[in-house]
Amino acid sequence: MVGGGHGAFIGAVHRMAARLDDRYALVAGCFSADPDRSLAAAADLGTARAYGSFAEMARREARRKDGIEAVAIVTPNHLHVPVAMAFLRRGIHVICDKPLAHDLAQARRLARAAEQAGVIFALTHNYTGYPMVRQARAMVDAGELGRIRLVQVEYAQDWLAEPIEQAGHKQALWRTDPAQSGGGGALGDIGTHAFNLARFVTGLGLEGLCADLHAFGPGRQLDDNGHVMLRFAGGARGMIWFSQVATGCENGLRLRVFGTKAALDWSQEDPNSLFLTPLGAPRQRLTRGSPGLAPEAARLTRVPAGHPEGYVEGFANLYRDIAEAILARREGRAAPPDASFPGLAEGLEGMAFIEACLRSSQRNGAWVSLRA
Amino acid sequence: MVGGGHGAFIGAVHRMAARLDDRYALVAGCFSADPDRSLAAAADLGTARAYGSFAEMARREARRKDGIEAVAIVTPNHLHVPVAMAFLRRGIHVICDKPLAHDLAQARRLARAAEQAGVIFALTHNYTGYPMVRQARAMVDAGELGRIRLVQVEYAQDWLAEPIEQAGHKQALWRTDPAQSGGGGALGDIGTHAFNLARFVTGLGLEGLCADLHAFGPGRQLDDNGHVMLRFAGGARGMIWFSQVATGCENGLRLRVFGTKAALDWSQEDPNSLFLTPLGAPRQRLTRGSPGLAPEAARLTRVPAGHPEGYVEGFANLYRDIAEAILARREGRAAPPDASFPGLAEGLEGMAFIEACLRSSQRNGAWVSLRA
Amino acid sequence: MVGGGHGAFIGAVHRMAARLDDRYALVAGCFSADPDRSLAAAADLGTARAYGSFAEMARREARRKDGIEAVAIVTPNHLHVPVAMAFLRRGIHVICDKPLAHDLAQARRLARAAEQAGVIFALTHNYTGYPMVRQARAMVDAGELGRIRLVQVEYAQDWLAEPIEQAGHKQALWRTDPAQSGGGGALGDIGTHAFNLARFVTGLGLEGLCADLHAFGPGRQLDDNGHVMLRFAGGARGMIWFSQVATGCENGLRLRVFGTKAALDWSQEDPNSLFLTPLGAPRQRLTRGSPGLAPEAARLTRVPAGHPEGYVEGFANLYRDIAEAILARREGRAAPPDASFPGLAEGLEGMAFIEACLRSSQRNGAWVSLRA
Amino acid sequence: MVGGGHGAFIGAVHRMAARLDDRYALVAGCFSADPDRSLAAAADLGTARAYGSFAEMARREARRKDGIEAVAIVTPNHLHVPVAMAFLRRGIHVICDKPLAHDLAQARRLARAAEQAGVIFALTHNYTGYPMVRQARAMVDAGELGRIRLVQVEYAQDWLAEPIEQAGHKQALWRTDPAQSGGGGALGDIGTHAFNLARFVTGLGLEGLCADLHAFGPGRQLDDNGHVMLRFAGGARGMIWFSQVATGCENGLRLRVFGTKAALDWSQEDPNSLFLTPLGAPRQRLTRGSPGLAPEAARLTRVPAGHPEGYVEGFANLYRDIAEAILARREGRAAPPDASFPGLAEGLEGMAFIEACLRSSQRNGAWVSLRA
Repeated sequence: MVGGGHGAFIGAVHRMAARLDDRYALVAGCFSADPDRSLAAAADLGTARAYGSFAEMARREARRKDGIEAVAIVTPNHLHVPVAMAFLRRGIHVICDKPLAHDLAQARRLARAAEQAGVIFALTHNYTGYPMVRQARAMVDAGELGRIRLVQVEYAQDWLAEPIEQAGHKQALWRTDPAQSGGGGALGDIGTHAFNLARFVTGLGLEGLCADLHAFGPGRQLDDNGHVMLRFAGGARGMIWFSQVATGCENGLRLRVFGTKAALDWSQEDPNSLFLTPLGAPRQRLTRGSPGLAPEAARLTRVPAGHPEGYVEGFANLYRDIAEAILARREGRAAPPDASFPGLAEGLEGMAFIEACLRSSQRNGAWVSLRA
Repeated sequence: MVGGGHGAFIGAVHRMAARLDDRYALVAGCFSADPDRSLAAAADLGTARAYGSFAEMARREARRKDGIEAVAIVTPNHLHVPVAMAFLRRGIHVICDKPLAHDLAQARRLARAAEQAGVIFALTHNYTGYPMVRQARAMVDAGELGRIRLVQVEYAQDWLAEPIEQAGHKQALWRTDPAQSGGGGALGDIGTHAFNLARFVTGLGLEGLCADLHAFGPGRQLDDNGHVMLRFAGGARGMIWFSQVATGCENGLRLRVFGTKAALDWSQEDPNSLFLTPLGAPRQRLTRGSPGLAPEAARLTRVPAGHPEGYVEGFANLYRDIAEAILARREGRAAPPDASFPGLAEGLEGMAFIEACLRSSQRNGAWVSLRA
Repeated sequence: MVGGGHGAFIGAVHRMAARLDDRYALVAGCFSADPDRSLAAAADLGTARAYGSFAEMARREARRKDGIEAVAIVTPNHLHVPVAMAFLRRGIHVICDKPLAHDLAQARRLARAAEQAGVIFALTHNYTGYPMVRQARAMVDAGELGRIRLVQVEYAQDWLAEPIEQAGHKQALWRTDPAQSGGGGALGDIGTHAFNLARFVTGLGLEGLCADLHAFGPGRQLDDNGHVMLRFAGGARGMIWFSQVATGCENGLRLRVFGTKAALDWSQEDPNSLFLTPLGAPRQRLTRGSPGLAPEAARLTRVPAGHPEGYVEGFANLYRDIAEAILARREGRAAPPDASFPGLAEGLEGMAFIEACLRSSQRNGAWVSLRA
Repeated sequence: MVGGGHGAFIGAVHRMAARLDDRYALVAGCFSADPDRSLAAAADLGTARAYGSFAEMARREARRKDGIEAVAIVTPNHLHVPVAMAFLRRGIHVICDKPLAHDLAQARRLARAAEQAGVIFALTHNYTGYPMVRQARAMVDAGELGRIRLVQVEYAQDWLAEPIEQAGHKQALWRTDPAQSGGGGALGDIGTHAFNLARFVTGLGLEGLCADLHAFGPGRQLDDNGHVMLRFAGGARGMIWFSQVATGCENGLRLRVFGTKAALDWSQEDPNSLFLTPLGAPRQRLTRGSPGLAPEAARLTRVPAGHPEGYVEGFANLYRDIAEAILARREGRAAPPDASFPGLAEGLEGMAFIEACLRSSQRNGAWVSLRA
């Protein structure tokens, strides 16, 4: 693991996700750019090998017979690419938090390097790991919604409602700093999740978007709210609203997909349910673990229906599928077809989404495509 | 009443709304442009005086000593103005369904005529009659939300998901016909309600909008779906999404207002609740009829909390307030200050909203103002 | 109308319910036992003929050619029988609030008198008027639930959580007074509604019950809370919990019926929904006014799905069905088969339920039958 | 671990719960009474030391320097006591699934033996591990509810709605077999959870109960449904309903506590929320991880509010607190005061509850106390 030391949030989540299904061991880490802090964190975590720099870690782990097979990158955004480069060039698989890179150009260089290296590259758009999100995708794939007309996504939080970065809040500091986050604020942090979720479930290509980004926080350089209108290939339309100043919202990611035959509605805060409404028929609540679900959803359930699974379990599903892929690679066989996780393609597309939103917003809401 | 004969929907609602609080008697009507059908409807309704044309009705009622004091207009949109003109010129108060007119120019002529005639003119944006909508407005007025940052509105239905107008569905026929509806389809039918609700609750002026209208129904000339991004005076932003092809949605009007101090969330399908979330505190469910509500909300409740009131009751609240105003006028005194209903100003603004959305959408999402 | 003067709650509800569908005119009333107060109320209500005593009203209305056809009785419980007797003996139909009588013996005398008089006798167990309750009954009748195993009912309020009767609260005063309410407090006021609803929907006969009644309010003579275990004919079991001290509950009447094939769940505070869960299949939300409902439910809907109907509309459905019956009687034909309302049988059974609960509770929870 | 081999449910949950916070290593196991199956399961799980009998495991682990410190017992109920005895007599701490024993007499022998052995004994009433359950208890303790009047608990499932034990369903087989389950069916399996939850949150002693147990499943010897009325010390009343034939219910454990000042409502299927309604004030939704929670709840949260935690996390909280206690014991210091888990006292009380329900039901609903 690189990053994820004291005070970090997502590093601890990655560790729990890796541990839950007993498919990983955390044996080496560079938990901070400050060597002392890195060592202290390693001691607390009981990690065998601690490093003071990621470059050293990559170099030395690559040389060991028992060196790490994969690295999890949980740093601020601007470090994703340099860290990933250091490891993948040495043939170490990469599990990287999103967004992929600081900007699209950098992301492209990374993608080329990763392809040349031939490693597995996973990007933790973790919301795609929820079983009922897999169920939604399977139902769209099977044509149960008919032709899709509307895709409404929202991702609303309120943790940046006040300018807590000015009071030194660590998470807020780097997320509101263009040097560490890139050009998108809430856009990169949660807008990309919302976009990825829509893409994952519907499979529809995005033909154009029209964005209105805004920073409500006083003195804030990066957006903390955005409205984006969407036009998809095939004629579907939609909307993404993301916000980190939406008072009262905790982690309100919601996706609705309306087709000619049926509609789906899923909310991250109630992840074990998926609401299906066929046209002219009653709304149904499908539940994780219940009979009749698609195999893609059923395979990812650990406890019976009514025993809620949450955020860590969804995240762990990605780790489980990544483990399947690594194991298959090690054994020289194809990965199981239903093991599924986002990777470079999704990362590149996410970066293209960020840049398209910035471009549209700078041009006062001109319709733009993802292609620059 | 003009309109509201056999097969109509909203006419029956107006009649129930007028009857509920025993403030009106239905004594005359022109229920159809076809005199025979008008007479037949009058007989069924037990209405004393039936007319074959609205012009005749206006003329003759104005001459009677016991003629009507007010007329309810529940025709398709294109007739709102000619019918209203006929009555208001004779000093008869007008209660008119929305939108106000076929187009903005026509609406302005009507407004001038109504002002000259000095009659009371009420426009039945009925959702403003719900007590918890009044509560929301009172809380915004009292500053309980702080400065408003975001206004998210959606109004989703699915009754036009299939091209039922092609099968002769009466309601669908006129609503998808530009000659009867005007330039907006779903935009005029429900988009104006959504816009009016946002305006009513927040009081914020709309500085600009950026619209993407679309017709999904095959062969449909008027929009059946629209996404509209909003910028308000004072810096608030927001969104209206309206749709009549959103599979599985019945009458899904929802308003969320996010301020610096607190947020409100209200849904028409659960109208007796209003959710309030102060920043950093738990979400609360305020209920109609419960202690602690604002007087503006408390005065409109008929049965105790937990005994749900619905659509007809909300509609009847407008009728009740209109009756207060008519009575005050008759008695030569000022109307009670808390009796409140939309009128010409709201009607003109609604027409301006329709035309601005059409203009923006025709210019591929240019930001436009309500002023042409 | 007898009762329902100033400060009363249910009288105003009866009047709105009668008015909503334009099937009744309120032409005479005795709104208070105090003649001056009765006259004042009549003046406020615009009622043509006001009386100072119900006996006088019955006598004089019976003599008029244009006298009332039916009387609505909305007094405290102990007056139901004497008032009803006065009118039905003169051939005037009776619409009486529940419970039927002060005690079972009195109820039996009334039932015999009503049968001899041959009048229509309606008891306003209004919750049976909700369309989705009719839907529930139709589904049980059609066998969609299979064999019923469990019937869980609760009716929870909190308006008597504090001893407001000691502060002179009018509604609380008579409801906590055995002389005016009879032997049951919350039991008579809401327990009978809960029992009636279970009986109405399931049609199952009650074979035995085991009750634990309690008064939490200091100095309160009548129960304000009760738990009742139920055994039905055919082997079903169940439970009624009613309370008027359940902090935070407004009018929480909920019925769940579990069968071998499917289960139903209905809540009065969300009356437009009925949840159906077939065994092994997703839960479905059936909505009032939507396609596919039983005719018994569909006939009682006034506005489309998504436009909520509430308490007054449900109450009005009883008044509508009673009007059908009165009209049929007047015209010498049979009442339409789907017009349905509770009457003497339900009233007698409700009184038997009250007395059985009292008996069981006094015997410390012995199982007893409804037959004394 | 003893038990938890192929086809088991709860064993896998215990393993995930132990792993989540990285406080345990699974190094030895007897996963089946069949040695071959035990070895096979151990191989699959990567467990270092596999045993063919629990007695051998206890003997040999006790002799090893690196032997296990604690054993998790996840067998059918009738084995809890013999297995626990084998380990605790050798000074190995015990983490045992519920109910504690086959019957109360056996439970008492175990309790005496455990006390003599001086080991830590934890009983996995896992629902007490949910943060919002801890929050509920803290609020009751702090007097925020006032005096408690009503305690309503229900635990409804439907997995035994059909006689699946007759088709060989492994989980159903032992749970419907008195020899393996003891005298209670659903009563022991889930009724004890419901009772424990009520006791944990309210702290109120149970003075009497009145039970109606029933088996709906054809040929079923043990109850699959029960209604139990409750009387608590201090005058509170309440109800437990548990069922495994409640069609459509997955794992519907819900607790409501009504006090003179406020009420609480918590549902296991939405475990991150706790609803609080002060008398006369709006209902509030408290969420796990949000500001203002009691320290007892805040300390058990891993991810921020809005990122749902589920069943495994709640279970893991017990494991975490048990680890704290074991560590403190090892280091010769007192366990941290807020580390909390059910143990022998709760196990004995659960067995007394089972036997009291059986006794009351056999005597046709006589009120009985927990003391035989």
